[in-house]
Amino acid sequence: MQRVEKVRDLQTLADAERLAGRRIALVPTMGALHPGHLSLVELARRRADRVWVSIFVNPTQFDDPGDLARYPRTLPEDLEACRAAGVDLVFAPTAAQMYPEGAQTVVEVLELTQPLCGRTRPGHFRGVTTVVAKLLLAAKPHLAVFGEKDFQQLAVIRRMVRDLHVDVEIVSAPIVREDDGLAMSSRNANLDREARIQARALARALDAAQEAWAGGERDARALLARVRAEIGKAPRAEIDYAELRDPESLASAPERLAGPTLLALAVFLRPPAGCEGAGVRLIDNRVLRP
Amino acid sequence: MQRVEKVRDLQTLADAERLAGRRIALVPTMGALHPGHLSLVELARRRADRVWVSIFVNPTQFDDPGDLARYPRTLPEDLEACRAAGVDLVFAPTAAQMYPEGAQTVVEVLELTQPLCGRTRPGHFRGVTTVVAKLLLAAKPHLAVFGEKDFQQLAVIRRMVRDLHVDVEIVSAPIVREDDGLAMSSRNANLDREARIQARALARALDAAQEAWAGGERDARALLARVRAEIGKAPRAEIDYAELRDPESLASAPERLAGPTLLALAVFLRPPAGCEGAGVRLIDNRVLRP
Repeated sequence: MQRVEKVRDLQTLADAERLAGRRIALVPTMGALHPGHLSLVELARRRADRVWVSIFVNPTQFDDPGDLARYPRTLPEDLEACRAAGVDLVFAPTAAQMYPEGAQTVVEVLELTQPLCGRTRPGHFRGVTTVVAKLLLAAKPHLAVFGEKDFQQLAVIRRMVRDLHVDVEIVSAPIVREDDGLAMSSRNANLDREARIQARALARALDAAQEAWAGGERDARALLARVRAEIGKAPRAEIDYAELRDPESLASAPERLAGPTLLALAVFLRPPAGCEGAGVRLIDNRVLRP
Repeated sequence: MQRVEKVRDLQTLADAERLAGRRIALVPTMGALHPGHLSLVELARRRADRVWVSIFVNPTQFDDPGDLARYPRTLPEDLEACRAAGVDLVFAPTAAQMYPEGAQTVVEVLELTQPLCGRTRPGHFRGVTTVVAKLLLAAKPHLAVFGEKDFQQLAVIRRMVRDLHVDVEIVSAPIVREDDGLAMSSRNANLDREARIQARALARALDAAQEAWAGGERDARALLARVRAEIGKAPRAEIDYAELRDPESLASAPERLAGPTLLALAVFLRPPAGCEGAGVRLIDNRVLRP
Protein backbone atom coordinates (compact mmCIF):
# COMPACT_ATOMS: atom_id res chain seq x y z
CA MET A 1 0.00 0.00 0.00
CA GLN A 2 1.37 3.31 -1.09
CA ARG A 3 1.34 6.33 1.21
CA VAL A 4 1.35 9.81 -0.34
CA GLU A 5 1.58 13.19 1.35
CA LYS A 6 1.97 15.69 -1.49
CA VAL A 7 -0.76 16.83 -3.87
CA ARG A 8 1.70 17.00 -6.75
CA ASP A 9 2.74 13.37 -6.25
CA LEU A 10 -0.87 12.27 -6.08
CA GLN A 11 -1.70 14.05 -9.34
CA THR A 12 1.25 12.39 -11.06
CA LEU A 13 0.06 8.97 -9.87
CA ALA A 14 -3.52 9.75 -10.94
CA ASP A 15 -2.35 10.74 -14.44
CA ALA A 16 -0.38 7.50 -14.72
CA GLU A 17 -3.35 5.36 -13.64
CA ARG A 18 -5.60 7.16 -16.10
CA LEU A 19 -3.10 6.78 -18.94
CA ALA A 20 -2.98 3.06 -18.15
CA GLY A 21 -6.77 2.95 -18.44
CA ARG A 22 -7.37 2.11 -14.78
CA ARG A 23 -10.32 3.48 -12.84
CA ILE A 24 -9.63 5.22 -9.52
CA ALA A 25 -12.12 5.34 -6.65
CA LEU A 26 -11.49 7.83 -3.87
CA VAL A 27 -12.87 7.42 -0.36
CA PRO A 28 -12.40 10.76 1.42
CA THR A 29 -12.26 10.39 5.21
CA MET A 30 -11.15 12.26 8.29
CA GLY A 31 -9.59 9.07 9.66
CA ALA A 32 -10.61 7.33 12.89
CA LEU A 33 -11.79 4.63 10.54
CA HIS A 34 -14.61 2.30 11.58
CA PRO A 35 -16.60 -0.38 9.74
CA GLY A 36 -18.72 2.34 8.15
CA HIS A 37 -15.67 3.64 6.33
CA LEU A 38 -14.61 0.12 5.43
CA SER A 39 -17.98 -0.45 3.78
CA LEU A 40 -17.16 2.54 1.56
CA VAL A 41 -13.83 0.92 0.72
CA GLU A 42 -15.62 -2.33 -0.14
CA LEU A 43 -18.01 -0.52 -2.44
CA ALA A 44 -15.13 1.38 -4.02
CA ARG A 45 -13.29 -1.85 -4.73
CA ARG A 46 -16.28 -3.31 -6.56
CA ARG A 47 -16.48 -0.22 -8.75
CA ALA A 48 -12.87 0.61 -9.63
CA ASP A 49 -9.41 -0.81 -10.28
CA ARG A 50 -7.68 1.28 -7.63
CA VAL A 51 -9.01 2.26 -4.21
CA TRP A 52 -7.51 5.39 -2.73
CA VAL A 53 -8.40 6.60 0.76
CA SER A 54 -7.69 10.14 1.88
CA ILE A 55 -7.23 10.83 5.59
CA PHE A 56 -7.35 14.49 6.49
CA VAL A 57 -8.96 16.13 9.49
CA ASN A 58 -10.02 19.29 7.70
CA PRO A 59 -9.80 22.24 10.06
CA THR A 60 -12.01 24.55 7.98
CA GLN A 61 -15.12 22.41 8.40
CA PHE A 62 -15.09 22.58 12.20
CA ASP A 63 -17.22 25.44 13.40
CA ASP A 64 -16.26 24.58 17.00
CA PRO A 65 -12.52 24.55 17.90
CA GLY A 66 -13.24 22.19 20.82
CA ASP A 67 -14.79 19.69 18.43
CA LEU A 68 -11.69 19.88 16.21
CA ALA A 69 -9.38 19.39 19.20
CA ARG A 70 -11.41 16.39 20.44
CA TYR A 71 -11.81 14.78 17.01
CA PRO A 72 -10.20 11.32 17.28
CA ARG A 73 -6.91 10.87 15.45
CA THR A 74 -5.70 7.29 14.97
CA LEU A 75 -3.42 7.35 11.93
CA PRO A 76 -1.35 4.19 12.66
CA GLU A 77 -4.52 2.14 13.20
CA ASP A 78 -6.13 3.75 10.15
CA LEU A 79 -3.18 2.79 7.95
CA GLU A 80 -3.33 -0.76 9.27
CA ALA A 81 -7.09 -0.94 8.62
CA CYS A 82 -6.58 0.32 5.07
CA ARG A 83 -3.83 -2.20 4.43
CA ALA A 84 -6.02 -5.01 5.73
CA ALA A 85 -8.91 -3.82 3.56
CA GLY A 86 -6.78 -3.93 0.43
CA VAL A 87 -6.60 -0.18 -0.10
CA ASP A 88 -4.03 0.65 -2.79
CA LEU A 89 -3.05 4.12 -1.64
CA VAL A 90 -3.55 6.37 1.36
CA PHE A 91 -3.30 10.10 0.85
CA ALA A 92 -2.56 11.71 4.22
CA PRO A 93 -1.55 15.30 3.53
CA THR A 94 -0.56 17.99 6.00
CA ALA A 95 -2.77 21.04 6.39
CA ALA A 96 -0.06 23.07 4.62
CA GLN A 97 -0.39 20.77 1.60
CA MET A 98 -4.14 21.16 1.42
CA TYR A 99 -4.10 24.88 2.24
CA PRO A 100 -0.96 26.40 0.66
CA GLU A 101 0.40 29.59 2.19
CA GLY A 102 -1.93 32.48 1.49
CA ALA A 103 -4.79 30.17 0.51
CA GLN A 104 -8.02 32.16 0.34
CA THR A 105 -10.27 30.33 -2.11
CA VAL A 106 -13.55 28.85 -0.98
CA VAL A 107 -16.15 26.72 -2.72
CA GLU A 108 -19.65 27.25 -1.48
CA VAL A 109 -23.04 25.69 -2.22
CA LEU A 110 -25.42 28.46 -1.36
CA GLU A 111 -28.86 27.00 -0.71
CA LEU A 112 -28.68 23.31 0.19
CA THR A 113 -26.32 24.31 3.00
CA GLN A 114 -28.80 26.58 4.76
CA PRO A 115 -31.07 24.20 6.71
CA LEU A 116 -30.31 21.30 9.09
CA CYS A 117 -26.61 21.06 9.99
CA GLY A 118 -25.95 24.30 8.14
CA ARG A 119 -28.06 26.19 10.66
CA THR A 120 -26.28 24.74 13.70
CA ARG A 121 -22.79 24.74 12.21
CA PRO A 122 -22.15 27.99 10.33
CA GLY A 123 -19.31 27.66 7.83
CA HIS A 124 -19.22 23.87 8.17
CA PHE A 125 -20.36 23.06 4.64
CA ARG A 126 -18.17 25.74 3.11
CA GLY A 127 -15.24 23.92 4.69
CA VAL A 128 -16.55 20.59 3.41
CA THR A 129 -17.09 21.67 -0.19
CA THR A 130 -13.78 23.51 -0.28
CA VAL A 131 -11.78 20.53 0.92
CA VAL A 132 -13.73 17.99 -1.13
CA ALA A 133 -13.15 20.07 -4.27
CA LYS A 134 -9.43 20.14 -3.46
CA LEU A 135 -9.35 16.38 -2.81
CA LEU A 136 -11.19 15.59 -6.04
CA LEU A 137 -8.84 17.81 -8.04
CA ALA A 138 -5.81 16.33 -6.29
CA ALA A 139 -6.75 12.67 -6.71
CA LYS A 140 -8.63 12.96 -10.05
CA PRO A 141 -10.73 9.89 -9.28
CA HIS A 142 -13.34 8.42 -11.61
CA LEU A 143 -15.63 7.99 -8.65
CA ALA A 144 -15.77 9.07 -5.04
CA VAL A 145 -17.68 7.29 -2.30
CA PHE A 146 -19.49 8.99 0.58
CA GLY A 147 -21.66 7.60 3.37
CA GLU A 148 -25.36 8.31 3.61
CA LYS A 149 -25.11 9.05 7.31
CA ASP A 150 -23.99 12.53 6.32
CA PHE A 151 -27.05 12.89 4.14
CA GLN A 152 -26.95 16.65 3.70
CA GLN A 153 -23.21 16.55 2.99
CA LEU A 154 -23.87 14.02 0.25
CA ALA A 155 -26.55 16.24 -1.32
CA VAL A 156 -24.27 19.27 -1.09
CA ILE A 157 -21.32 17.44 -2.66
CA ARG A 158 -23.47 16.07 -5.49
CA ARG A 159 -24.66 19.60 -6.18
CA MET A 160 -21.13 21.02 -6.11
CA VAL A 161 -19.79 18.36 -8.46
CA ARG A 162 -22.63 18.89 -10.89
CA ASP A 163 -22.46 22.68 -10.79
CA LEU A 164 -18.68 22.90 -11.24
CA HIS A 165 -18.53 20.13 -13.86
CA VAL A 166 -16.14 18.02 -11.80
CA ASP A 167 -15.84 14.89 -13.94
CA VAL A 168 -16.40 12.36 -11.16
CA GLU A 169 -19.22 10.03 -10.22
CA ILE A 170 -20.45 10.44 -6.66
CA VAL A 171 -21.46 7.10 -5.18
CA SER A 172 -23.20 6.74 -1.84
CA ALA A 173 -23.21 3.86 0.59
CA PRO A 174 -25.85 3.02 3.21
CA ILE A 175 -25.40 3.75 6.91
CA VAL A 176 -23.60 1.03 8.84
CA ARG A 177 -24.87 0.50 12.39
CA GLU A 178 -23.67 -1.02 15.64
CA ASP A 179 -25.59 -4.05 16.92
CA ASP A 180 -27.89 -1.83 18.96
CA GLY A 181 -28.67 0.38 15.98
CA LEU A 182 -26.36 3.36 16.64
CA ALA A 183 -25.05 4.71 13.34
CA MET A 184 -21.29 4.30 13.15
CA SER A 185 -19.41 7.56 13.53
CA SER A 186 -15.90 8.56 14.51
CA ARG A 187 -17.49 10.80 17.14
CA ASN A 188 -18.99 7.76 18.93
CA ALA A 189 -15.53 7.28 20.41
CA ASN A 190 -16.10 10.48 22.39
CA LEU A 191 -19.20 9.13 24.17
CA ASP A 192 -18.88 8.06 27.79
CA ARG A 193 -20.47 4.76 28.77
CA GLU A 194 -23.80 6.23 29.82
CA ALA A 195 -24.01 8.54 26.79
CA ARG A 196 -23.21 5.59 24.53
CA ILE A 197 -26.24 3.75 25.90
CA GLN A 198 -28.52 6.78 25.62
CA ALA A 199 -27.31 7.36 22.05
CA ARG A 200 -29.46 4.41 21.03
CA ALA A 201 -32.35 6.85 21.20
CA LEU A 202 -31.52 8.23 17.73
CA ALA A 203 -31.95 4.94 15.89
CA ARG A 204 -34.97 4.07 18.03
CA ALA A 205 -36.56 7.36 17.11
CA LEU A 206 -36.01 6.66 13.41
CA ASP A 207 -37.42 3.15 13.87
CA ALA A 208 -40.48 4.51 15.65
CA ALA A 209 -41.10 7.00 12.86
CA GLN A 210 -40.62 4.36 10.21
CA GLU A 211 -43.05 2.04 11.99
CA ALA A 212 -45.65 4.77 12.12
CA TRP A 213 -45.00 5.60 8.45
CA ALA A 214 -45.39 1.92 7.53
CA GLY A 215 -48.67 1.94 9.42
CA GLY A 216 -49.88 4.77 7.20
CA GLU A 217 -49.05 7.83 9.30
CA ARG A 218 -48.58 10.78 6.91
CA ASP A 219 -48.99 13.67 9.31
CA ALA A 220 -45.66 15.46 9.75
CA ARG A 221 -46.43 16.70 13.26
CA ALA A 222 -47.47 13.26 14.45
CA LEU A 223 -44.31 11.64 13.05
CA LEU A 224 -42.05 14.24 14.62
CA ALA A 225 -43.91 13.83 17.93
CA ARG A 226 -42.99 10.14 17.84
CA VAL A 227 -39.36 11.07 17.22
CA ARG A 228 -39.30 13.61 20.05
CA ALA A 229 -40.92 11.16 22.44
CA GLU A 230 -38.23 8.55 21.77
CA ILE A 231 -35.39 11.03 22.18
CA GLY A 232 -37.05 12.35 25.32
CA LYS A 233 -36.57 8.98 26.99
CA ALA A 234 -32.80 9.59 27.06
CA PRO A 235 -32.24 12.22 29.76
CA ARG A 236 -28.87 13.38 28.45
CA ALA A 237 -30.08 13.63 24.83
CA GLU A 238 -31.07 17.06 23.58
CA ILE A 239 -32.46 17.52 20.10
CA ASP A 240 -30.58 19.94 17.85
CA TYR A 241 -33.03 19.32 15.05
CA ALA A 242 -35.57 16.70 14.00
CA GLU A 243 -36.97 17.55 10.59
CA LEU A 244 -38.82 16.13 7.63
CA ARG A 245 -37.54 17.32 4.26
CA ASP A 246 -37.48 16.53 0.58
CA PRO A 247 -34.55 14.12 0.02
CA GLU A 248 -33.49 15.92 -3.18
CA SER A 249 -34.01 19.62 -2.60
CA LEU A 250 -33.94 19.44 1.22
CA ALA A 251 -37.00 21.72 1.14
CA SER A 252 -39.30 21.46 4.16
CA ALA A 253 -41.79 18.63 3.80
CA PRO A 254 -45.50 19.51 3.69
CA GLU A 255 -47.72 18.98 6.76
CA ARG A 256 -49.38 16.12 4.87
CA LEU A 257 -46.53 13.90 3.62
CA ALA A 258 -46.71 12.24 0.23
CA GLY A 259 -43.58 11.12 -1.64
CA PRO A 260 -40.23 9.97 -0.24
CA THR A 261 -39.40 11.98 2.86
CA LEU A 262 -36.10 12.50 4.61
CA LEU A 263 -36.24 12.28 8.38
CA ALA A 264 -33.06 13.96 9.60
CA LEU A 265 -31.94 14.05 13.18
CA ALA A 266 -29.16 15.79 15.12
CA VAL A 267 -28.89 15.23 18.85
CA PHE A 268 -26.45 16.40 21.49
CA LEU A 269 -25.49 13.85 24.11
CA ARG A 270 -24.84 16.23 27.00
CA PRO A 271 -22.04 15.69 29.50
CA PRO A 272 -22.99 14.14 32.87
CA ALA A 273 -24.44 16.49 35.49
CA GLY A 274 -21.77 18.78 36.93
CA CYS A 275 -19.45 18.42 33.92
CA GLU A 276 -18.51 21.12 31.44
CA GLY A 277 -18.77 21.05 27.65
CA ALA A 278 -21.29 20.94 24.83
CA GLY A 279 -21.28 17.16 24.72
CA VAL A 280 -21.15 15.00 21.62
CA ARG A 281 -23.32 15.85 18.63
CA LEU A 282 -24.58 12.87 16.65
CA ILE A 283 -26.57 12.78 13.43
CA ASP A 284 -28.67 10.08 11.83
CA ASN A 285 -31.35 9.91 9.15
CA ARG A 286 -33.71 7.74 7.24
CA VAL A 287 -35.56 8.22 3.98
CA LEU A 288 -39.18 7.17 4.42
CA ARG A 289 -40.47 5.75 1.15
CA PRO A 290 -44.10 5.15 0.20
CA MET B 1 -12.32 23.27 -36.63
CA GLN B 2 -14.61 21.51 -34.22
CA ARG B 3 -17.47 23.29 -32.50
CA VAL B 4 -18.74 21.93 -29.18
CA GLU B 5 -21.67 23.08 -27.08
CA LYS B 6 -21.98 20.49 -24.33
CA VAL B 7 -19.71 20.11 -21.32
CA ARG B 8 -20.01 16.32 -21.44
CA ASP B 9 -18.83 16.22 -25.07
CA LEU B 10 -15.91 18.51 -24.26
CA GLN B 11 -14.81 16.29 -21.38
CA THR B 12 -14.94 13.22 -23.62
CA LEU B 13 -12.75 14.97 -26.20
CA ALA B 14 -10.36 16.15 -23.48
CA ASP B 15 -9.99 12.62 -22.12
CA ALA B 16 -9.25 11.33 -25.62
CA GLU B 17 -6.59 14.00 -26.26
CA ARG B 18 -4.99 13.26 -22.93
CA LEU B 19 -5.01 9.50 -23.55
CA ALA B 20 -3.30 10.19 -26.88
CA GLY B 21 -0.62 12.16 -25.04
CA ARG B 22 -1.55 15.50 -26.60
CA ARG B 23 -1.37 18.76 -24.65
CA ILE B 24 -4.44 21.00 -24.64
CA ALA B 25 -4.28 24.79 -24.25
CA LEU B 26 -7.50 26.60 -23.42
CA VAL B 27 -8.08 30.26 -24.21
CA PRO B 28 -11.18 31.34 -22.28
CA THR B 29 -12.91 34.35 -23.86
CA MET B 30 -16.23 36.15 -23.86
CA GLY B 31 -16.06 36.45 -27.64
CA ALA B 32 -15.98 39.72 -29.59
CA LEU B 33 -12.49 38.58 -30.49
CA HIS B 34 -9.80 41.11 -31.34
CA PRO B 35 -6.05 40.88 -31.99
CA GLY B 36 -5.45 40.74 -28.23
CA HIS B 37 -7.33 37.45 -28.08
CA LEU B 38 -5.52 36.19 -31.16
CA SER B 39 -2.19 36.84 -29.46
CA LEU B 40 -3.37 34.47 -26.72
CA VAL B 41 -4.19 31.89 -29.38
CA GLU B 42 -0.72 32.33 -30.88
CA LEU B 43 0.92 31.81 -27.52
CA ALA B 44 -1.30 28.78 -26.86
CA ARG B 45 -0.28 27.23 -30.15
CA ARG B 46 3.41 27.53 -29.30
CA ARG B 47 2.83 25.77 -25.98
CA ALA B 48 0.41 22.95 -26.80
CA ASP B 49 -0.71 20.43 -29.42
CA ARG B 50 -4.33 21.53 -29.40
CA VAL B 51 -5.72 25.04 -29.06
CA TRP B 52 -9.23 25.29 -27.70
CA VAL B 53 -11.06 28.60 -27.40
CA SER B 54 -14.13 28.99 -25.22
CA ILE B 55 -16.64 31.70 -26.07
CA PHE B 56 -19.12 32.40 -23.31
CA VAL B 57 -20.49 35.74 -22.16
CA ASN B 58 -20.75 34.81 -18.51
CA PRO B 59 -23.77 36.51 -16.96
CA THR B 60 -22.65 36.04 -13.35
CA GLN B 61 -19.59 38.25 -13.70
CA PHE B 62 -21.55 41.32 -14.79
CA ASP B 63 -22.41 43.46 -11.81
CA ASP B 64 -24.28 45.85 -14.13
CA PRO B 65 -27.13 44.40 -16.26
CA GLY B 66 -26.73 47.26 -18.75
CA ASP B 67 -23.11 46.29 -19.26
CA LEU B 68 -24.16 42.68 -19.92
CA ALA B 69 -26.82 43.78 -22.39
CA ARG B 70 -24.38 46.03 -24.24
CA TYR B 71 -21.52 43.55 -24.27
CA PRO B 72 -20.69 42.95 -27.96
CA ARG B 73 -21.68 39.54 -29.34
CA THR B 74 -20.16 38.54 -32.67
CA LEU B 75 -20.20 34.74 -32.77
CA PRO B 76 -20.07 34.24 -36.58
CA GLU B 77 -17.08 36.58 -36.89
CA ASP B 78 -15.47 34.99 -33.83
CA LEU B 79 -15.77 31.52 -35.34
CA GLU B 80 -14.25 32.77 -38.57
CA ALA B 81 -11.37 34.43 -36.70
CA CYS B 82 -10.71 31.22 -34.78
CA ARG B 83 -10.72 29.18 -37.96
CA ALA B 84 -8.30 31.59 -39.60
CA ALA B 85 -6.04 31.49 -36.53
CA GLY B 86 -5.83 27.69 -36.66
CA VAL B 87 -7.87 27.06 -33.52
CA ASP B 88 -8.72 23.36 -33.23
CA LEU B 89 -11.92 23.60 -31.25
CA VAL B 90 -14.38 26.28 -30.14
CA PHE B 91 -16.45 25.60 -27.05
CA ALA B 92 -19.51 27.86 -27.19
CA PRO B 93 -21.93 26.62 -24.54
CA THR B 94 -25.34 27.95 -23.63
CA ALA B 95 -25.86 29.47 -20.19
CA ALA B 96 -27.93 26.40 -19.30
CA GLN B 97 -24.92 24.21 -20.05
CA MET B 98 -22.62 26.23 -17.85
CA TYR B 99 -25.19 26.77 -15.10
CA PRO B 100 -27.34 23.64 -14.90
CA GLU B 101 -30.83 23.97 -13.44
CA GLY B 102 -30.66 24.70 -9.73
CA ALA B 103 -26.96 25.62 -9.90
CA GLN B 104 -25.94 27.30 -6.67
CA THR B 105 -22.22 26.68 -6.28
CA VAL B 106 -19.76 29.54 -6.24
CA VAL B 107 -15.98 29.69 -6.15
CA GLU B 108 -14.61 32.72 -4.43
CA VAL B 109 -11.14 34.13 -3.80
CA LEU B 110 -11.60 36.13 -0.67
CA GLU B 111 -8.82 38.72 -0.40
CA LEU B 112 -7.25 39.45 -3.78
CA THR B 113 -10.73 40.32 -5.01
CA GLN B 114 -11.29 43.13 -2.51
CA PRO B 115 -9.38 46.11 -3.98
CA LEU B 116 -9.38 47.69 -7.45
CA CYS B 117 -12.10 46.28 -9.74
CA GLY B 118 -13.50 44.28 -6.81
CA ARG B 119 -14.46 47.50 -5.06
CA THR B 120 -16.25 48.98 -8.07
CA ARG B 121 -17.79 45.75 -9.30
CA PRO B 122 -19.19 43.75 -6.37
CA GLY B 123 -19.61 40.07 -7.21
CA HIS B 124 -17.63 40.40 -10.45
CA PHE B 125 -14.71 38.22 -9.43
CA ARG B 126 -16.95 35.64 -7.82
CA GLY B 127 -18.56 35.26 -11.23
CA VAL B 128 -15.16 35.08 -12.90
CA THR B 129 -13.68 32.44 -10.60
CA THR B 130 -16.86 30.39 -10.69
CA VAL B 131 -17.02 30.30 -14.48
CA VAL B 132 -13.27 29.82 -14.94
CA ALA B 133 -13.33 26.88 -12.52
CA LYS B 134 -16.19 25.39 -14.54
CA LEU B 135 -14.37 25.96 -17.84
CA LEU B 136 -11.13 24.44 -16.57
CA LEU B 137 -12.98 21.38 -15.26
CA ALA B 138 -14.96 21.07 -18.50
CA ALA B 139 -12.00 21.38 -20.89
CA LYS B 140 -9.34 19.77 -18.67
CA PRO B 141 -6.55 21.71 -20.39
CA HIS B 142 -2.86 21.37 -19.57
CA LEU B 143 -2.56 25.12 -19.75
CA ALA B 144 -4.86 28.10 -19.95
CA VAL B 145 -3.93 31.49 -21.36
CA PHE B 146 -5.13 34.84 -20.01
CA GLY B 147 -4.28 38.39 -20.98
CA GLU B 148 -2.39 40.74 -18.69
CA LYS B 149 -4.80 43.57 -19.39
CA ASP B 150 -7.06 42.01 -16.78
CA PHE B 151 -4.21 42.02 -14.31
CA GLN B 152 -6.23 41.49 -11.17
CA GLN B 153 -8.26 38.74 -12.83
CA LEU B 154 -5.03 36.96 -13.69
CA ALA B 155 -3.79 37.19 -10.08
CA VAL B 156 -7.16 35.97 -8.79
CA ILE B 157 -7.25 33.02 -11.20
CA ARG B 158 -3.67 32.01 -10.37
CA ARG B 159 -4.61 32.04 -6.70
CA MET B 160 -7.78 30.01 -7.29
CA VAL B 161 -5.96 27.39 -9.35
CA ARG B 162 -3.23 27.04 -6.76
CA ASP B 163 -5.60 26.92 -3.80
CA LEU B 164 -7.96 24.35 -5.31
CA HIS B 165 -5.17 22.21 -6.82
CA VAL B 166 -6.52 22.56 -10.33
CA ASP B 167 -3.85 20.75 -12.34
CA VAL B 168 -3.37 23.39 -15.01
CA GLU B 169 -0.64 25.88 -15.84
CA ILE B 170 -1.82 29.47 -16.05
CA VAL B 171 0.06 31.36 -18.77
CA SER B 172 -0.22 35.10 -19.27
CA ALA B 173 0.26 37.17 -22.39
CA PRO B 174 1.19 40.86 -22.63
CA ILE B 175 -1.34 43.58 -23.44
CA VAL B 176 -1.89 44.18 -27.15
CA ARG B 177 -2.49 47.81 -28.11
CA GLU B 178 -4.01 49.79 -30.95
CA ASP B 179 -1.61 52.05 -32.91
CA ASP B 180 -2.41 54.96 -30.63
CA GLY B 181 -1.72 52.94 -27.50
CA LEU B 182 -5.26 52.06 -26.41
CA ALA B 183 -5.28 48.57 -24.88
CA MET B 184 -7.40 46.24 -26.98
CA SER B 185 -10.69 45.34 -25.35
CA SER B 186 -14.03 44.07 -26.56
CA ARG B 187 -15.58 47.06 -24.81
CA ASN B 188 -13.73 49.49 -27.10
CA ALA B 189 -16.44 48.69 -29.65
CA ASN B 190 -18.89 50.51 -27.39
CA LEU B 191 -16.96 53.81 -27.57
CA ASP B 192 -18.34 56.59 -29.74
CA ARG B 193 -15.86 58.43 -31.96
CA GLU B 194 -15.05 61.16 -29.48
CA ALA B 195 -14.77 58.77 -26.54
CA ARG B 196 -12.49 56.55 -28.60
CA ILE B 197 -10.12 59.48 -29.07
CA GLN B 198 -10.23 60.49 -25.43
CA ALA B 199 -9.62 56.87 -24.40
CA ARG B 200 -6.01 57.39 -25.44
CA ALA B 201 -5.61 59.12 -22.10
CA LEU B 202 -5.26 55.79 -20.29
CA ALA B 203 -2.17 54.66 -22.17
CA ARG B 204 -0.75 58.17 -22.11
CA ALA B 205 -1.16 58.26 -18.35
CA LEU B 206 0.70 54.97 -18.03
CA ASP B 207 3.43 56.26 -20.35
CA ALA B 208 3.77 59.46 -18.34
CA ALA B 209 4.10 57.49 -15.11
CA GLN B 210 6.60 55.14 -16.66
CA GLU B 211 8.66 58.04 -17.93
CA ALA B 212 8.71 59.60 -14.48
CA TRP B 213 9.59 56.21 -12.96
CA ALA B 214 12.44 55.80 -15.48
CA GLY B 215 13.62 59.27 -14.47
CA GLY B 216 13.89 58.07 -10.88
CA GLU B 217 10.54 59.20 -9.46
CA ARG B 218 9.68 56.90 -6.53
CA ASP B 219 7.12 59.02 -4.75
CA ALA B 220 3.69 57.36 -5.02
CA ARG B 221 1.74 60.61 -4.76
CA ALA B 222 3.83 62.29 -7.43
CA LEU B 223 3.40 59.37 -9.82
CA LEU B 224 -0.35 59.25 -9.29
CA ALA B 225 -0.53 63.01 -9.79
CA ARG B 226 1.05 62.50 -13.22
CA VAL B 227 -1.54 59.88 -14.01
CA ARG B 228 -4.45 62.05 -12.88
CA ALA B 229 -3.14 65.01 -14.83
CA GLU B 230 -3.05 62.98 -18.07
CA ILE B 231 -6.53 61.58 -17.54
CA GLY B 232 -7.75 65.07 -16.66
CA LYS B 233 -6.94 66.23 -20.17
CA ALA B 234 -9.78 64.07 -21.51
CA PRO B 235 -13.00 65.86 -20.49
CA ARG B 236 -15.22 62.78 -20.76
CA ALA B 237 -12.81 60.55 -18.83
CA GLU B 238 -13.53 59.99 -15.15
CA ILE B 239 -11.19 57.97 -13.00
CA ASP B 240 -12.71 54.99 -11.23
CA TYR B 241 -9.36 54.16 -9.65
CA ALA B 242 -5.68 54.87 -10.24
CA GLU B 243 -3.60 52.91 -7.78
CA LEU B 244 -0.13 51.62 -7.10
CA ARG B 245 0.01 48.12 -5.68
CA ASP B 246 2.23 45.12 -5.17
CA PRO B 247 1.99 43.02 -8.38
CA GLU B 248 1.82 39.74 -6.41
CA SER B 249 -0.26 40.41 -3.32
CA LEU B 250 -2.08 43.46 -4.71
CA ALA B 251 -1.37 45.12 -1.34
CA SER B 252 -1.19 48.93 -1.42
CA ALA B 253 2.25 50.18 -2.41
CA PRO B 254 4.20 52.23 0.14
CA GLU B 255 4.45 56.04 -0.21
CA ARG B 256 8.10 55.56 -1.13
CA LEU B 257 8.15 52.95 -3.91
CA ALA B 258 10.91 50.35 -4.10
CA GLY B 259 10.41 47.03 -5.93
CA PRO B 260 8.22 46.25 -8.92
CA THR B 261 5.00 48.22 -8.68
CA LEU B 262 1.70 47.69 -10.41
CA LEU B 263 0.05 50.84 -11.72
CA ALA B 264 -3.58 49.93 -12.27
CA LEU B 265 -6.13 52.17 -13.88
CA ALA B 266 -9.90 52.07 -14.42
CA VAL B 267 -11.57 54.96 -16.22
CA PHE B 268 -15.12 55.64 -17.28
CA LEU B 269 -15.58 57.29 -20.65
CA ARG B 270 -18.78 59.18 -19.94
CA PRO B 271 -21.53 59.59 -22.54
CA PRO B 272 -21.67 62.93 -24.42
CA ALA B 273 -23.36 65.81 -22.59
CA GLY B 274 -27.12 65.35 -22.49
CA CYS B 275 -26.97 61.58 -22.96
CA GLU B 276 -27.93 58.94 -20.42
CA GLY B 277 -25.88 56.03 -19.13
CA ALA B 278 -22.77 55.20 -17.13
CA GLY B 279 -20.53 55.23 -20.18
CA VAL B 280 -17.84 52.70 -21.02
CA ARG B 281 -15.46 51.50 -18.32
CA LEU B 282 -11.93 50.73 -19.52
CA ILE B 283 -9.01 49.28 -17.59
CA ASP B 284 -5.31 49.30 -18.26
CA ASN B 285 -2.15 48.68 -16.27
CA ARG B 286 1.60 48.57 -16.28
CA VAL B 287 4.13 46.99 -13.95
CA LEU B 288 6.87 49.51 -13.21
CA ARG B 289 10.13 47.64 -12.69
CA PRO B 290 13.31 49.05 -11.15
